[in-house]
Amino acid sequence: TEKLVFEELKLRVRELENELIKCKQKIDKMSAEVVDSNPYSRLMALKRMGIVEDYEKIRTFTVAVVGVGGVGSVTAEMLTRCGIGKLILFDYDKVELANMNRLFFQPHQAGLSKVEAAEHTLRTINPDVQFETHNYNITTMDNFAHFMDRISHGALQDGKAVDLVLSCVDNFEARMVINTACNELSQIWMESGVSENAVSGHIQLIIPGETACFACAPPLVVAANIDEKTLKREGVCAASLPTTMGVVAGILVQNVLKYLLKFGTVSHYLGYNAMQDFFPTMAMKANPTCDDRHCRKQQDDYKKKEAERPKKVVEQAVEEEVVHEENDWGIELVSEQTDEELQAASGPVPDLPEGITVAYTIPDKTGTSEGETVEETEQSLEELMAQMRKM
Amino acid sequence: TEKLVFEELKLRVRELENELIKCKQKIDKMSAEVVDSNPYSRLMALKRMGIVEDYEKIRTFTVAVVGVGGVGSVTAEMLTRCGIGKLILFDYDKVELANMNRLFFQPHQAGLSKVEAAEHTLRTINPDVQFETHNYNITTMDNFAHFMDRISHGALQDGKAVDLVLSCVDNFEARMVINTACNELSQIWMESGVSENAVSGHIQLIIPGETACFACAPPLVVAANIDEKTLKREGVCAASLPTTMGVVAGILVQNVLKYLLKFGTVSHYLGYNAMQDFFPTMAMKANPTCDDRHCRKQQDDYKKKEAERPKKVVEQAVEEEVVHEENDWGIELVSEQTDEELQAASGPVPDLPEGITVAYTIPDKTGTSEGETVEETEQSLEELMAQMRKM
Repeated sequence: TEKLVFEELKLRVRELENELIKCKQKIDKMSAEVVDSNPYSRLMALKRMGIVEDYEKIRTFTVAVVGVGGVGSVTAEMLTRCGIGKLILFDYDKVELANMNRLFFQPHQAGLSKVEAAEHTLRTINPDVQFETHNYNITTMDNFAHFMDRISHGALQDGKAVDLVLSCVDNFEARMVINTACNELSQIWMESGVSENAVSGHIQLIIPGETACFACAPPLVVAANIDEKTLKREGVCAASLPTTMGVVAGILVQNVLKYLLKFGTVSHYLGYNAMQDFFPTMAMKANPTCDDRHCRKQQDDYKKKEAERPKKVVEQAVEEEVVHEENDWGIELVSEQTDEELQAASGPVPDLPEGITVAYTIPDKTGTSEGETVEETEQSLEELMAQMRKM
Repeated sequence: TEKLVFEELKLRVRELENELIKCKQKIDKMSAEVVDSNPYSRLMALKRMGIVEDYEKIRTFTVAVVGVGGVGSVTAEMLTRCGIGKLILFDYDKVELANMNRLFFQPHQAGLSKVEAAEHTLRTINPDVQFETHNYNITTMDNFAHFMDRISHGALQDGKAVDLVLSCVDNFEARMVINTACNELSQIWMESGVSENAVSGHIQLIIPGETACFACAPPLVVAANIDEKTLKREGVCAASLPTTMGVVAGILVQNVLKYLLKFGTVSHYLGYNAMQDFFPTMAMKANPTCDDRHCRKQQDDYKKKEAERPKKVVEQAVEEEVVHEENDWGIELVSEQTDEELQAASGPVPDLPEGITVAYTIPDKTGTSEGETVEETEQSLEELMAQMRKM
């Protein structure tokens, strides 16, 4: 009976809380006043410290977070506490006790949808942020159309496109769907991922037409120093750690803040190898023979824009792939397969900086060598997605 | 009136929650079963993945966290979700709305002591963890004695010493007090810190007698690429970001897990420069002329132990300070002061890896040159602490 009373009270408190949150006046202006009662004093101090020119601009931005799991939930919480203007959350999953080894969700939320539970917690943390949540799988046809619509019209101002899409999903299909949408919409986005063995992860910035998209090359992952075959066992429950996911969410949102508020260097690719505390970085340009026709179209548009741009007297250095020839960090990859065995079994392994490798390789297509353009397939989005689902 | 009803209900729910938590049976064994209702399935999977040999050993460890602020609270949450045996939390501060730009605490906890609020949240997250909290300032004489006692007798088993002390404090005096205690008790600990401009941080492992303690050398910090003079303005409210603090807590607890569960490489020093996404590492041995007499005593003990140890046929390479001579990452420190100006104004700047510098320098003592041993002062702990408080 005590448990029943408790559950009833909890429900009523939740209702009252929700009503109170809605009553709360949103602030007009972020205060920089240094008093204990000001939740923005330590953020506005970034201006006085010479780090950010106009911190309050954060209130004008809208960010979409796809996947509200171990990385996505912490990402959403960090952006909420930073005072982002609006967050749009997408996830079809429910909170489970099996998620409790990662930050954010609490046991009493088990059974709730992740977006519902997240919205409640985030509103409590910062009532100044606007939230929009979608409890569905973006990879089905109807939901994909709605997802595209919200990305292109969900911003705070005038139904404009969001400022950034963050991929915090845990599977290949969903990443490919986000990639397809962002290429078509010319939407800048950031990718994140954590390995199945829980001890590595990465973030990646994708500017359609300019930097490599998710279809331009096999996904880049952080090289593991453990037997690769262990990683590929089918049907094994993935491991996860709150540490690795917290670090990946932290470097992801840091990159978001640097990109939106224009400070520091925005990373194109940043990896995290937790076993050796090694953080490889790199940059990769879009592939002219990318399988995604929208990516190729964005590349054409980008080239035209670049050509039209008035030439500066001081030529900007063209960004090139950073390759560290020497093993400065003394890291050795331990694998029972040699590089030659790997290459023989599949496609060529591209030349990548120390510590970064590809998730898989693609065998050479007959008749297609580097530099050639592949045949325009002009497949419909439907056909492409049907193909993807078979992967 | 609705607000009053709400506050009453909240209080009652809190009471009931606390009672329920106490009723809950702690688990006997961590299950590795892959079901949605098992909070440990993704952690126990680390064994199957070949990362950790015996994950369940985590339940036997006790960790003390000193400072439950932006880094300490997230550190405690990560350890709680990982299923640590026991946590001992120290903090004298109260939760304020001005803390809401960092993870963990929520607005409704404003006014509560940080340790009380943290314990409530952490117990809700994982009732299998044992908690002990101390709402006091460790730097006063009485509290310091109690702090020493809890460090040396607070472990889960038989009143033994804790397995690790984590310093998550935000000021020099508290760090020095933890250093003093750990040197005297021969207690292994880890240091963490975040810069006042919110865009860099570090963690450091200190093994008394073996690696440099906090008094062996000026504290190492991550080199900022901004005007150093900005950083040293007095009375300016420090900036902070949930991203930087989340990353520092993540790399700290990752190092704790690697140290306790014996996997990967435990870092001696790992820095984080958020402006350039650069993560410098290094290692530094204890200084034979350290000002802390307990550090020097631990060094003697360590040397004796090393000498007594049977020599292995294959000699282990002595760990040396890692110095990267080349600027592999193309990072330039931008400062309006030249290195020469800095050196002229104070003491010598030691030879450190790219990206790491000292918080301050110590002018050469007259008559004391490198290699000489300084006069044994044999000051009492009380005298030392009185001196420290004047700093």
